[in-house]
Amino acid sequence: MERYTLGIDYGTLSGRLLILQVPTGKEIGSLEVPYAHGVMDTALPTGEPLAQDWALQHPRDWLDVLAAVPQLLAQTGIAPEQIVGIGSDFTACTLLPVDADGQPLCLDEAWAHNPNAWPKLWKHHGAQSQANRINALANKRNEAWLPLYGGKISSEWALPKMWQVLEEAPAIWDAADRFVEAGDWIVFSLCGRVIRNTCAAGYKGLWHEKRDAEGHILGTGWPEQDFLAALDPRLSDAFTIKSKGDLIAPGRKAGELSSAGASLTGLCEGTPVAAGIIDAHASLPAAGIGGTGQLMLIMGTSTCHIVLSETGTGVPGICGVVPEGVVPGLYAYEAGQACVGDHFAWFTRNCLPAAYTEEASRQGINLYSLLQQKAEKLTAGENGLLALDWWNGCRSPLQDANLSGMMVGMTLRTKPEEIYRALIEATAYGTRQILQAYLDGGVKIEGLVAGGGIARKDAMTMQIYADVLGLPIRVAASTQSGALGSAILGALAAGLYQDAAVAAKQLGHCLDTVYTPIAAHKDVYDTLYREYLKLQQYFGQGGSDVMQTLRKLRK
Amino acid sequence: MERYTLGIDYGTLSGRLLILQVPTGKEIGSLEVPYAHGVMDTALPTGEPLAQDWALQHPRDWLDVLAAVPQLLAQTGIAPEQIVGIGSDFTACTLLPVDADGQPLCLDEAWAHNPNAWPKLWKHHGAQSQANRINALANKRNEAWLPLYGGKISSEWALPKMWQVLEEAPAIWDAADRFVEAGDWIVFSLCGRVIRNTCAAGYKGLWHEKRDAEGHILGTGWPEQDFLAALDPRLSDAFTIKSKGDLIAPGRKAGELSSAGASLTGLCEGTPVAAGIIDAHASLPAAGIGGTGQLMLIMGTSTCHIVLSETGTGVPGICGVVPEGVVPGLYAYEAGQACVGDHFAWFTRNCLPAAYTEEASRQGINLYSLLQQKAEKLTAGENGLLALDWWNGCRSPLQDANLSGMMVGMTLRTKPEEIYRALIEATAYGTRQILQAYLDGGVKIEGLVAGGGIARKDAMTMQIYADVLGLPIRVAASTQSGALGSAILGALAAGLYQDAAVAAKQLGHCLDTVYTPIAAHKDVYDTLYREYLKLQQYFGQGGSDVMQTLRKLRK
Repeated sequence: MERYTLGIDYGTLSGRLLILQVPTGKEIGSLEVPYAHGVMDTALPTGEPLAQDWALQHPRDWLDVLAAVPQLLAQTGIAPEQIVGIGSDFTACTLLPVDADGQPLCLDEAWAHNPNAWPKLWKHHGAQSQANRINALANKRNEAWLPLYGGKISSEWALPKMWQVLEEAPAIWDAADRFVEAGDWIVFSLCGRVIRNTCAAGYKGLWHEKRDAEGHILGTGWPEQDFLAALDPRLSDAFTIKSKGDLIAPGRKAGELSSAGASLTGLCEGTPVAAGIIDAHASLPAAGIGGTGQLMLIMGTSTCHIVLSETGTGVPGICGVVPEGVVPGLYAYEAGQACVGDHFAWFTRNCLPAAYTEEASRQGINLYSLLQQKAEKLTAGENGLLALDWWNGCRSPLQDANLSGMMVGMTLRTKPEEIYRALIEATAYGTRQILQAYLDGGVKIEGLVAGGGIARKDAMTMQIYADVLGLPIRVAASTQSGALGSAILGALAAGLYQDAAVAAKQLGHCLDTVYTPIAAHKDVYDTLYREYLKLQQYFGQGGSDVMQTLRKLRK
Repeated sequence: MERYTLGIDYGTLSGRLLILQVPTGKEIGSLEVPYAHGVMDTALPTGEPLAQDWALQHPRDWLDVLAAVPQLLAQTGIAPEQIVGIGSDFTACTLLPVDADGQPLCLDEAWAHNPNAWPKLWKHHGAQSQANRINALANKRNEAWLPLYGGKISSEWALPKMWQVLEEAPAIWDAADRFVEAGDWIVFSLCGRVIRNTCAAGYKGLWHEKRDAEGHILGTGWPEQDFLAALDPRLSDAFTIKSKGDLIAPGRKAGELSSAGASLTGLCEGTPVAAGIIDAHASLPAAGIGGTGQLMLIMGTSTCHIVLSETGTGVPGICGVVPEGVVPGLYAYEAGQACVGDHFAWFTRNCLPAAYTEEASRQGINLYSLLQQKAEKLTAGENGLLALDWWNGCRSPLQDANLSGMMVGMTLRTKPEEIYRALIEATAYGTRQILQAYLDGGVKIEGLVAGGGIARKDAMTMQIYADVLGLPIRVAASTQSGALGSAILGALAAGLYQDAAVAAKQLGHCLDTVYTPIAAHKDVYDTLYREYLKLQQYFGQGGSDVMQTLRKLRK
């Protein structure tokens, strides 16, 4: 009997199912299920309006994805018993309050009219005030965990989101048995057990490794209760009680498909279910990375930079280091750039003249292809421009969401494609800075693998990245890396492999294309990168507070 | 008999004739005569190609303008004898080599194939190398005249243009009896006498007032011969011989219409002809300014900032101070911003998305009107942006053509109209800096008058300027300020007035509209202006050499 695993990938607007053949690594079939409610950012389903910066989701949309499994089985002709493992990934931190039975409070009519009862999507930004106060106090007290997260936590993470519920809707706080990552809630829905995956807990939930002054590992845990109490006495049990649950690494078995899970999915009761993982992190096994030495760039609207390592001390400027954050047995480091694809989309939407739109339509190509056509004729430095890639703040290494964009060098001859190329180059400098932070922090990096739509489709951008970074870049092959990675972790959890590196190598894959640095370009980009560093110091590290002043005046 | 004067305005692409009634100040009629050859920047009429940065003109095009006078007389029903004075203005430095009879060498078949025989238009930039060497030596020798020009001369000025001819075409240098400003060549064509107007000589020809160490006036003159000889021994007589000619202030009589001039124009022999003036400077009398205390902004593709003063010591950062530079008896200061209307044109051409173009066409308005419609809804500071207005370098106060543009504060929500408004605001900060330099230099400024198309048509921009500058701004009324100003100077030269201030007040005029600063906006702009100053110091005064590095890499 042929064997398969199922990968389930929960994105921002849809879920995706994928069936993977083991051990061939062949993707047999996949199915995308859009969320009926999408992102709820203006009103609840019950009509209550939402404040600006809110972004919620509907748990029923997630269950609809599971309910589509039989359709994919029928489509691929695979029998339920041939699915021998299940893995899943989810955006994070997407957090919901549940009752003692694990049921979302928002599905209870008693709470359904209160926005704070609903799952807060990763990009919910309503908890900025809470995040600011957490950062201020953690800084003041020199909390040991703070450097592990690059010195600052984001409003997107679990603690600010939980505190927002507590402050704005204490009754919901009281009614909640606990707060659960949506990815863990899916695993709960499948196997009936609330566990917490180390990936989301580590990157978004402040779960971390504790060490003594000499660096010896003391164990893992959360910020101390007295810190939480100093924030707000009611927060003391935020981690121990209000988000209780065993911690399990991605790739390990969280449980087996329950009868409820089996009837949701049409699969066989008892099928092994892997612990969850954050969607981006699932790309690593999908690209063949289950061991150390390869830095993975996941390039989408934003970019994540993830690398596995045998040691796990904090690296300045890097968002997080998590024990068993991606696979069992290894630390996983993560850094991020807040604005990559978003940056290019902003440009084409707001800055591209009508003549270019017409030219693209005459040629029958899209705007990106036209820009690429024009921008790839330029050589390194020819645009005479340099930008700081902070249109959406700077995540790594400065951890400052209040920073903004900057561009210098424009003349009356500057053309749109030159600006476009400068924006791409700026994101490459940002990546180089992150690479350098890793290397300076002693993390082994021997090669780069890029994943996501940009990596596969945009050869010009990838060549610029290779030239700026000075390292060859391979490209992840699958167009469904989240779902593929989850299916690989499902195979690992099912015990089909003993070692994550082997499973990833066998089941994940890269394209044959390799982007290799061109020496002459690299020299120019070395010069430009030095200027980038000076500008980032001036605008982002105290040389000038103009970005802060502008932000204040804008409000 | 009703009396009139004729104003002749030589612009970059056309000449314009205007008949002014005296003493009513009524503009009776005008006529535009486009130049058949326009700007010659790719090839000579004889087919020889031109190098990049070259920009030439054809003297016959200028004569065609004079030949159109009878048409204007016919059109207005005015008899030749009713024209009692003639004034003219010209772009500068537009310079041509002539023979001993005053005939342009380029019209001689012997020289017509050599680009260096042709008139070099003001925006000819082929003499940058010469300008650089002049600046370097003048700096090294601490030439006393250098501070009068803000510490740096432009490649557009007479000496670099002459030296280019000498270096590239010494035979033409030898064949030239002298080099003449085109404006002076027009006066020569009218009255047969080669004089030099103090305006062009002072602003573009290095003619200046000499003072002793205590500041006592020693007289006027040129850079010393030993300085010229140190540049190139053949340049020693550049001023004394190669550009000989008496100096006469605008508004004074240069001569009377010769029989040749009369047959060119159809006017009466003996009619008084005023000395020439630079086109921009003629705007002052046109706006009613013939005395001290009013700063005139002439806003076009670039902006000139001119003010008359009873004293004339050098003001740091200001391009030039010229005795009798605009009217007899007063010093005239001039500063400049290299990129104003050009800036906005660059933006609409290169950065405006198709959706906006479509919206403008649906509304049946032009792009500027649409942008204005959107940008005027924003309040001060709301765009969250700040720019340095150096897309074409910085003329005043930094005198550095190698600087380039900078913008900071962009986010993923930044809209085109916000960028557009930031560019306008940047030019206003640039103007404020120039105003401040004047005030710091002890020049009396009690009010502002703006002229040019932007001043008349763009109320939003003018209100931003008033808010940024913190002073009320009046707007020059005439749409033909060069020609009107020249006609007023023609009246002065004809002896119809004894005093320039009186002539200007009576014959020139402003609109009734006054733009008054709005206190709340001014406060915000005061904050932004302080940030502008810091950025200009960082990018333009040694904080960072990124603009220089980018420029080098671009080449």
